[in-house]
Amino acid sequence: MSSTSPQTLVEQLRWRYATKKFDPAKTIHPALWAALEESLVLSPSSYGLQPWKFMVITDPGLKARLKAVSWNQPQVEDCSHHVVFLAKKTFGVADIDRFLERMAEVRGVSVDSLKMYRGYMVGDLVEGPRAAMVREWAVRQVYLALGVFLSATAMVGVDTCPLEGIDSAQYDAILGLEGTDWTAVVACPAGYRSESDKYATLPKVRYKAEELIERR
Amino acid sequence: MSSTSPQTLVEQLRWRYATKKFDPAKTIHPALWAALEESLVLSPSSYGLQPWKFMVITDPGLKARLKAVSWNQPQVEDCSHHVVFLAKKTFGVADIDRFLERMAEVRGVSVDSLKMYRGYMVGDLVEGPRAAMVREWAVRQVYLALGVFLSATAMVGVDTCPLEGIDSAQYDAILGLEGTDWTAVVACPAGYRSESDKYATLPKVRYKAEELIERR
Repeated sequence: MSSTSPQTLVEQLRWRYATKKFDPAKTIHPALWAALEESLVLSPSSYGLQPWKFMVITDPGLKARLKAVSWNQPQVEDCSHHVVFLAKKTFGVADIDRFLERMAEVRGVSVDSLKMYRGYMVGDLVEGPRAAMVREWAVRQVYLALGVFLSATAMVGVDTCPLEGIDSAQYDAILGLEGTDWTAVVACPAGYRSESDKYATLPKVRYKAEELIERR
Repeated sequence: MSSTSPQTLVEQLRWRYATKKFDPAKTIHPALWAALEESLVLSPSSYGLQPWKFMVITDPGLKARLKAVSWNQPQVEDCSHHVVFLAKKTFGVADIDRFLERMAEVRGVSVDSLKMYRGYMVGDLVEGPRAAMVREWAVRQVYLALGVFLSATAMVGVDTCPLEGIDSAQYDAILGLEGTDWTAVVACPAGYRSESDKYATLPKVRYKAEELIERR
């Protein structure tokens, strides 16, 4: 196994910060970007259902339009790849069956053999206690994927700046998502910090470990 | 910089899976665990506000009680460290001021110099559009931290199994959180997979990249 050392893990997570200013001249190498896209694909989710999509924006015109509905934050234009995280707005039996068909295909089993698993998921997300909050359930999964992406980028030395303050309805309009089952939840420009970004060297503000972590 | 290679990143994320059976004889070395706790502390959050706490359970009696309210999933008992992710149930001006005091302390600036930042946060989370959903806002941040933790553990070769299906009210009762501002949202046992966990070798089920990622 080729795992990373705990030192590298902590160093890279300390190195990460919410980049305020990207160097617009620097782009992420395609091979490196392919690995980061794979980290998105590999992100875990509830039951493995992946109620998400990821839009990767590199077109300058489209970036400019999205910047205008992202509080004009320059990172949207200056980054290398702007990732928009979409959540599924509805989630029903058809979505579960689509997933089970994929599972049967990947694992070489019959869909019928997955009946019990299907029952759990339908009982929870479609007919059960979480049916009423299934849209928020999908958003939570998207945030989990964002967490994976923020770590993955940090590990390979790519800068990011998660943007919650996007105008979701405007994003949907610009990206052609209106009338679809998908909505933009959060965005994350990725690229390389500008040498002049003074935020890069500010000490990270975290509560003391003893205030955040309790051991029992 | 000592970043990880894209190959290692992808290999470790592929190596990760939702561990069904931990080896109860294997514990995470204290130095390695310290790095993983630091990954929790370093997790990004909205405005940096960290509306979370992390409870790390290693006491066998407590693990057994929590297992009983986690659908009896054996991972809760057999893991090395069981992490319970707590979200803050309310979030107001006092929480924002507590954070700004910490920021002033860490960065050696006056709280007064952070007035504009304070205004943004209060305007958004206390008096603004997100005030009505501030509890869910906190939960989303917790899911982001869970995503960071799942990647961090995978990078250093530690196994996990995120558990959404916990009885939150029962967790709160057992952990003494009733009547506090904190509630258990999700849990994640961490440790080492048992050699007999047949799930470890099952192919990972993900939609095709072209179904999940759209490039513009």
